[in-house]
Amino acid sequence: MNDALKATLAPSLKSWIESANDPASDFPIQNLPFGIFSNAVNTQPRAGVAIGEWIVDLAVLEDARLIDAQDTFRAPRLNDFIALGREKWREVRIALSGLLAQGNATLRDNAALLQRALVPLSDATMHLPVEIPGYTDFYSSKEHATNVGSMFRDPKNALLPNWSELPVGYNGRASSVVVSGTDVRRPNGQIKLPDADRPVFSACRKLDIELETGFIVGRGNALGEPIPCEEAEAHIFGMVLLNDWSARDIQQWEYVPLGPFNSKGFATTISPWIVTIDALEPFRTATPVQEPQPLDYLRHKGDHAFDIDLQVTLRPEGTKQATTISRTNFKLMYWSMAQQLAHHTVGGCNTRVGDLMGSGTISGATPDSCGSLLESTWNGQRPLKLEEGGERAFLQDGDEIAITGWCQGEGYRVGFGECAGRILAARA
Amino acid sequence: MNDALKATLAPSLKSWIESANDPASDFPIQNLPFGIFSNAVNTQPRAGVAIGEWIVDLAVLEDARLIDAQDTFRAPRLNDFIALGREKWREVRIALSGLLAQGNATLRDNAALLQRALVPLSDATMHLPVEIPGYTDFYSSKEHATNVGSMFRDPKNALLPNWSELPVGYNGRASSVVVSGTDVRRPNGQIKLPDADRPVFSACRKLDIELETGFIVGRGNALGEPIPCEEAEAHIFGMVLLNDWSARDIQQWEYVPLGPFNSKGFATTISPWIVTIDALEPFRTATPVQEPQPLDYLRHKGDHAFDIDLQVTLRPEGTKQATTISRTNFKLMYWSMAQQLAHHTVGGCNTRVGDLMGSGTISGATPDSCGSLLESTWNGQRPLKLEEGGERAFLQDGDEIAITGWCQGEGYRVGFGECAGRILAARA
Repeated sequence: MNDALKATLAPSLKSWIESANDPASDFPIQNLPFGIFSNAVNTQPRAGVAIGEWIVDLAVLEDARLIDAQDTFRAPRLNDFIALGREKWREVRIALSGLLAQGNATLRDNAALLQRALVPLSDATMHLPVEIPGYTDFYSSKEHATNVGSMFRDPKNALLPNWSELPVGYNGRASSVVVSGTDVRRPNGQIKLPDADRPVFSACRKLDIELETGFIVGRGNALGEPIPCEEAEAHIFGMVLLNDWSARDIQQWEYVPLGPFNSKGFATTISPWIVTIDALEPFRTATPVQEPQPLDYLRHKGDHAFDIDLQVTLRPEGTKQATTISRTNFKLMYWSMAQQLAHHTVGGCNTRVGDLMGSGTISGATPDSCGSLLESTWNGQRPLKLEEGGERAFLQDGDEIAITGWCQGEGYRVGFGECAGRILAARA
Repeated sequence: MNDALKATLAPSLKSWIESANDPASDFPIQNLPFGIFSNAVNTQPRAGVAIGEWIVDLAVLEDARLIDAQDTFRAPRLNDFIALGREKWREVRIALSGLLAQGNATLRDNAALLQRALVPLSDATMHLPVEIPGYTDFYSSKEHATNVGSMFRDPKNALLPNWSELPVGYNGRASSVVVSGTDVRRPNGQIKLPDADRPVFSACRKLDIELETGFIVGRGNALGEPIPCEEAEAHIFGMVLLNDWSARDIQQWEYVPLGPFNSKGFATTISPWIVTIDALEPFRTATPVQEPQPLDYLRHKGDHAFDIDLQVTLRPEGTKQATTISRTNFKLMYWSMAQQLAHHTVGGCNTRVGDLMGSGTISGATPDSCGSLLESTWNGQRPLKLEEGGERAFLQDGDEIAITGWCQGEGYRVGFGECAGRILAARA
């Protein structure tokens, strides 16, 4: 990492945009996450970077020749920009950091430009940040896999033999990935009740969340050309929060032998801002010890976990106070993102710019750190108490779930914004 | 179906292109399949229709105002044309059938136009016919599911309980779908040998085929809006042949509990010509009796199977004579394409134009009608004899597999061309 890039990460750095200097803001000058927005002025979605309570309209800055990204910022998705490559992402980051830093007058004192370049976050509609050619979901939390294995298989052999040898993953449905704020309709489907001979067609009765993060592929690989583990992080553009909504009763009936399908394909929500892998650099930390030591193709030296605090809240319809139903941290994940990508491609599978790779449900060791209601309520047996009264085994219509996540720095935090969705009643 | 469309299907119809009237041709005037080609003159891939030994360059015909498709035929994929809708597909089909029919002089006698509009099939390079936003693979042959269940689970309860209640399917990897003729590199990966404590990293030792067909979605559905079973066929543009190459040893180790992943993600081959659902109309036949009767959302009246003969050949490197290793028929499939699509979307999952839906391995009841070597050799225990000597349990480097398929009419056949691929040695 060169000095100019390092300078964009300095904890002491401040912006002339005052709201960015609030220690509670998700979007300080150290963050600079990328997203796609529209508003009353720009009804066509286009690229922006979040800072404090504002969005920087990147196409406006490029028109003013303050940054250069080969005219990719007017596209309604970031793929074309991302495809320009890591040197370009970094060049734009460094330029933006300079323009927004305290003491830099170029943009700050150009009133006409400023008026066009800064858009209030509160006025903007956010869109999916990328077109997603492929969505893969992993299963990389040891605590989550152990909980699920204990519940549905054998508590004494909760982890299947392959789990500690490779980052288990499966192909998800890319078409149904939606951006935070999109309502989620409870799915109908086949469910098999314990005493029945045959399944019934029903609205899902065990609707659940899965607290995850996801990473966005920034540089693909050709078919037949695996990505080595040591090089894998250079293929990642950045990270988002992800809620892999799950219909547990549909899942339990359908998933053998080929895996989850309709139980996951009705919606997957991601947060709108992609926090770049560069912005996460100061929060790099050690991955858990892996025992047995993985096969060679899954080995990498150094620190490949990231210290990201995560929190999930549930707010029933008509109430004001949300209940925090989970607090955990991304650094607990057994398999790193680099290992996931190395494994995904080791047989020759190609990836493409914009591919989304979900971490798998992120669970800690205690019920209040579980990433799904399935785990925290132990398949509904121990409902959670809600702040304004009542309880929840699984989600009810009108419930709003919000995932938040942030890296805590000294005096600032690099946040992800929100990954939220509200449950609508099933189709009649 | 209106009279003009019906007329394009008449068995007595002949073309002034003589090679199309050969009873052995895959591409008679009754077929008119769509694909994407390039050649020495048109190095940019563009849309064509196959007839006899020729490709009709559709953009040339549109420039001459003989057909109209809103200028979509110069795109390097058919998605934009397909998105124009079923009325447009039919209008173009009817117009082409007229232009190519015996007795029609419009194109035949316009030497200058003809010279540009007809391209020899043998000179063309075929490309993927569509950009594939999503690839789903079903598991809808009862014989296949029974064989696999007998081999790996319990011969007495070979079919899992959900199998006869719903068309089991899973998400495949769209990025690694390739067009016929693309070489397939043997994947490396983790395999677990029976007596070993831990897996090893190895080239696949049990490389296999899966004989399938696939259908291409011609009209998608919005998230949350299921496609009713009775309407599902109207959402299908057409069909292709599909080889779902499978690494059995990698699959056996990785697939629990979330399904196949790297064992399938290294390549899936499809044939280049999409045979439209309209061209298949005369070959519609009854689906097998379904017992138990499916739930309401999976019911449809009438005939929803299609009588498509299928054949697989294997040709070892350096030999001339290929060995036919399977003969079967698509009409044996237990679940129809309409039921697959209705099930896929019943929970609200959205589909998009160009989505590929694989049938699942198509197997008959006897070893010589199995759609995989896994089945026909019973996991390698009974190798197949090859025509020029030698035998095969699983695929060897240099082997070429070719799937062909056709609907046999009276004096003509509606064929799919070839879905072929050759095995390259694994990466060192």
